Amino acid sequence: MASKSSILFHFSFLFLLPWLSQSSAHPLDPLSPDEISTVRRVILSTHLPSPPSLSIHYVGVDEPAKHEVLAWDQKRPSPPRQAFVIARFGGETHEIIINVANASLVSDRVYYGSGFPLLTLEEQTAAAALPLSYPPFIDSARRRGVALADVVCSTFTAGWFGEPESARRRLKLLCFVAGETANFYVRPLEGIVVVVDLDDMRIVEYRDRVAPPVPKAAGTDYRGGRQHRVMVAQPAGKGFKVDGHSVSWSNWQFHLSYDARAGLIVSLASVCDTDKGGTRRRVLYRGYVSELFVPYMDPVEEWYFRTFFDSGEYGFGLWASPLVPNVDCPANAEFMDGYYAGQDGQPVKVPNVFCIFERYSGDVAWRHTEFGIPGQLIREADPEVSLVVRMVAALGNYDYVTDWEFKSSGSIKVGVSLTGILEVKGTNYTHTSQIAAGDDQHGSLLVQNTMAIYHDHFVTYYLDLDIDGCNNTFVKSKLKTARVTDGSVPRRSYWTVVREAARTEADGRVEMGAVPAELLVVNPNKKTKMGNDIGYRLISNGAPAASLLADDDYPEMRASYGKKQVWVTPYNKSEKWAAGLYVDNSRGDDNLAVWSQRNRVIENTDIVLWHTVGFHHIPYQEDFPLMPMLSSGFELRPSNFFERNPFFKSKQQRQEEHRSPLS
Amino acid sequence: MASKSSILFHFSFLFLLPWLSQSSAHPLDPLSPDEISTVRRVILSTHLPSPPSLSIHYVGVDEPAKHEVLAWDQKRPSPPRQAFVIARFGGETHEIIINVANASLVSDRVYYGSGFPLLTLEEQTAAAALPLSYPPFIDSARRRGVALADVVCSTFTAGWFGEPESARRRLKLLCFVAGETANFYVRPLEGIVVVVDLDDMRIVEYRDRVAPPVPKAAGTDYRGGRQHRVMVAQPAGKGFKVDGHSVSWSNWQFHLSYDARAGLIVSLASVCDTDKGGTRRRVLYRGYVSELFVPYMDPVEEWYFRTFFDSGEYGFGLWASPLVPNVDCPANAEFMDGYYAGQDGQPVKVPNVFCIFERYSGDVAWRHTEFGIPGQLIREADPEVSLVVRMVAALGNYDYVTDWEFKSSGSIKVGVSLTGILEVKGTNYTHTSQIAAGDDQHGSLLVQNTMAIYHDHFVTYYLDLDIDGCNNTFVKSKLKTARVTDGSVPRRSYWTVVREAARTEADGRVEMGAVPAELLVVNPNKKTKMGNDIGYRLISNGAPAASLLADDDYPEMRASYGKKQVWVTPYNKSEKWAAGLYVDNSRGDDNLAVWSQRNRVIENTDIVLWHTVGFHHIPYQEDFPLMPMLSSGFELRPSNFFERNPFFKSKQQRQEEHRSPLS
Repeated sequence: MASKSSILFHFSFLFLLPWLSQSSAHPLDPLSPDEISTVRRVILSTHLPSPPSLSIHYVGVDEPAKHEVLAWDQKRPSPPRQAFVIARFGGETHEIIINVANASLVSDRVYYGSGFPLLTLEEQTAAAALPLSYPPFIDSARRRGVALADVVCSTFTAGWFGEPESARRRLKLLCFVAGETANFYVRPLEGIVVVVDLDDMRIVEYRDRVAPPVPKAAGTDYRGGRQHRVMVAQPAGKGFKVDGHSVSWSNWQFHLSYDARAGLIVSLASVCDTDKGGTRRRVLYRGYVSELFVPYMDPVEEWYFRTFFDSGEYGFGLWASPLVPNVDCPANAEFMDGYYAGQDGQPVKVPNVFCIFERYSGDVAWRHTEFGIPGQLIREADPEVSLVVRMVAALGNYDYVTDWEFKSSGSIKVGVSLTGILEVKGTNYTHTSQIAAGDDQHGSLLVQNTMAIYHDHFVTYYLDLDIDGCNNTFVKSKLKTARVTDGSVPRRSYWTVVREAARTEADGRVEMGAVPAELLVVNPNKKTKMGNDIGYRLISNGAPAASLLADDDYPEMRASYGKKQVWVTPYNKSEKWAAGLYVDNSRGDDNLAVWSQRNRVIENTDIVLWHTVGFHHIPYQEDFPLMPMLSSGFELRPSNFFERNPFFKSKQQRQEEHRSPLS
Repeated sequence: MASKSSILFHFSFLFLLPWLSQSSAHPLDPLSPDEISTVRRVILSTHLPSPPSLSIHYVGVDEPAKHEVLAWDQKRPSPPRQAFVIARFGGETHEIIINVANASLVSDRVYYGSGFPLLTLEEQTAAAALPLSYPPFIDSARRRGVALADVVCSTFTAGWFGEPESARRRLKLLCFVAGETANFYVRPLEGIVVVVDLDDMRIVEYRDRVAPPVPKAAGTDYRGGRQHRVMVAQPAGKGFKVDGHSVSWSNWQFHLSYDARAGLIVSLASVCDTDKGGTRRRVLYRGYVSELFVPYMDPVEEWYFRTFFDSGEYGFGLWASPLVPNVDCPANAEFMDGYYAGQDGQPVKVPNVFCIFERYSGDVAWRHTEFGIPGQLIREADPEVSLVVRMVAALGNYDYVTDWEFKSSGSIKVGVSLTGILEVKGTNYTHTSQIAAGDDQHGSLLVQNTMAIYHDHFVTYYLDLDIDGCNNTFVKSKLKTARVTDGSVPRRSYWTVVREAARTEADGRVEMGAVPAELLVVNPNKKTKMGNDIGYRLISNGAPAASLLADDDYPEMRASYGKKQVWVTPYNKSEKWAAGLYVDNSRGDDNLAVWSQRNRVIENTDIVLWHTVGFHHIPYQEDFPLMPMLSSGFELRPSNFFERNPFFKSKQQRQEEHRSPLS
């Protein structure tokens, strides 16, 4: 990814109206604008220095303990609302906890470990403007014949490549040419790297190494609206209800929260089981994109460091796009806003940060035609209508559409779709015939002077499944071929299922597809009436890429969890971010793979499933000037969770539903 | 699968109206009812015996040579319309070719090889009725306390398990109890196997071995309509045109044909390239489900033979469901009928056998939010509207929804969705605790007395891709980790792409996922302006199962292509069916793996890609009484086929489109 150099539009949505604090707030609700303001006031009123030296990097709900959330009852007040803040003063990183309800400081400690917090949007905007008044850069632009007014610079995290520990935060800038096109990403000022000291906000290194031609603007723009030819409507009204941040639809209830780092968080997803008298049964305590690692595959000076952690370095939520009704989401969608704390601590609104809609794709949820009963033709089916919650993060050049889709069957389908603009390298090549064999094995020539560099996208999900309770076990159901030993039949083989319950974290590391197996999270303490373990299984929808980087390479050390698509850890409130809490300049000493090395017990305890949806991306010409959607994801599918297909209810249950269609 | 014991409803649609023969028929058009009647007339009027000993097993278009089809011009008459017929008389299988235009016999030869043709629906109906008047069966039913009027028997192909060659066609019957429920499949009369000689139409073996309880009817029915809560509408009209069997939509044109064996056939799919002055460029000459192999994993006497070839034994098209408007397909769908020849040669109509509709799921085809240009917020996106062609085959208990989805991006997405009813085994077990360790490792206990047996679904597609011309090459783009040798940068590794062009069929056999690679079909004779090979790539959407049966097991010999998900063969008009032309009682001597052993050259020649979408199915309680949809498939995605993303056209092109929105 490249980065957002302007936050004007987010600021223009600055929320100025008073916000009524709700005593009945859900304990997992995101901080309201009022609460964010309270956080700021407390920080300013305590011993901490005041702006401009105050720099707020993260403000989020400090979630109450899980048992408190689970015990929470709407009739009683929430557990104390606390905020977790990461701020920097005087070159140090502070972790601050604030009681929002009584506006008091709970704790403030300095973090001395390696790595730095999320970059703020404001410091990125400031940094991106520096080259435009930096004489050596002005010279470079002039030598290339580029008008300075057309130049846009973007911010690129510098990574870590074995440098000794330093308290200085450094950021790299790369610059592009807009002008006739909005698609500046495909017009790099290749060969120039600018290094900024972020705390001092000044250029500390400058290098203009080579100057291949700037690719042409013609044919690169993507603006211009289209027609919408299929309309959706819900004449009988929407089938879902939103109450604060809680959503109910069909048999599902869940809570939505926006976080500057994670983006969309789904919590407390539970499903109503009519076979158990309408009991709500828990499925997912909390699920979100924990990290998004995007390493590029060109080791040249201007490219080797491009190994982005879009969540931990940039903030998947901070870069969320305001969704456009009837374009990003269909006409029957509802929207929800989000609020984050700006660098100065003020609340900033992201309007329409989520949309929620009922999806109908023209498919059926189930069907059957029965020709087999003489004299009858039975044709039964149910149209598939599901509920989708969507957030889009546009992290510089790339756009990620992330969907959580709930189905009446009990499935949760998680979708990740990639679109947006490729990161390209300026080159002298104008035809592949100029590329000597063995030369430039790092990308695809898309148009003249434009090489799109090979890269990966590893989207790692945090999935704290609580299948019908907290204590769960991860089970691998391996398919094994067996020989037939009974000589009375002529069949010689079959496959059977060998279930292996994971005991410790080592058993929870899975390279998907290496052996045929189904991966389940079950509740070993509960059984169906038939005696089967109650569970959900993980089904990949086809993005199984794992990291191909060498184990001793620096980006691989930082994202060392990328070699396996599945990890299972015991629940630990502090283990939320797959690449660690401080990812900018991280050294790989605090990530999922490191935690897993402790090899803790994961059997019949509260466990978290981590799943990476991975894409190796070899660019093709069709990805230019803007790539068509490439989609994948996974399904969490009930597997002996229900006694039977939840679509099929008794006649009485159906009649009750008919009287109350929104229940 | 089990099988269809009644064809009453198909017959009730018998087409009686005259059919105007069209001189401008497309050479790949399916046979019209009139043409089918002509075929019958010719057979009856030649030397062949007349009904009832006449038994027609297959009638389809005898496709003209590919070069003739490609040279065909709508202004000139079609190449001679010929029908290919498989019929049986006097215990022999005849292959007959008939010139339909002049109603004459072209050839008639007897087939002496192993295996038998498709079963007819009529003989299955007749066979399924035999037990009901067979005294030993009547006794068996009485002993189990089952009313004969409630019994439904289904037809199960017997497979081949090493028996010596025989000219007798044998079929097994298994019986079930309907009565209070339409869902008889889940109420087996377990332990009874009936063997029928199909040519004599009489029971030749009968065995009543064990009698576990018949599972209860309560909770098994699936009938009862639902509400439809999201409506789709196209106020500006449909965006596609159907002319005979040819469809045009957006940049796509293709031809649809119904075949009793293959079901839906997509032919001559070509895409209009506005960058090449609106030239039509060929992508897919012909694509369809070539075979659907479903082996079950219980070697007991009543189960070991259940290794169904749904296309080659039963006919994927013969079992197509008439689609219900607004249920199986959305309100904006159009429908197409199909016709097959009954056992007596008469045309039989399958109304609404295909539907065609524009799909809008609420997704975007591409998007980008640009925050990076100071003072601007750019938000651009295109709603994703695609064109879907659907056929549903309900092969006894299972329903397969097969979709071909065309996208303006140039992608073709092929979807396979499984729903319907599991094949279950009656058992004494009423709780899993009764199952001793090591015992009954063949299925899942779903409800009392009901074990759903493990099985696979291997859906093998025939994909005669013609990427911008006939001569193509299969390329594996393998991703390989490389070390950085340039000491001036601290990066240590990256991955690069090593392209391997397949030279012979051995290079075309691929176990998907074994190594990271993209699989492409390219036209090595054409390049993009940049010099890249023009191609399409195959992307799996996550059903990678390969066969786990032992190589020496009989069903594995018959479906020996099932160990690899991808095969590439040179185009050969006679190699259409992955498991061979005669699959009932086949011995594995004529299938895709056997052809591939010839190791023919597949480089820069007309090639066919065969791809299997594979599911291992471990049943869960949610699959009962009727399983929620399980979906997968693959995408054929343009990969340096276009010069750029075809969504992005010049302004002039867009204005022209605007004037003629359906072009």
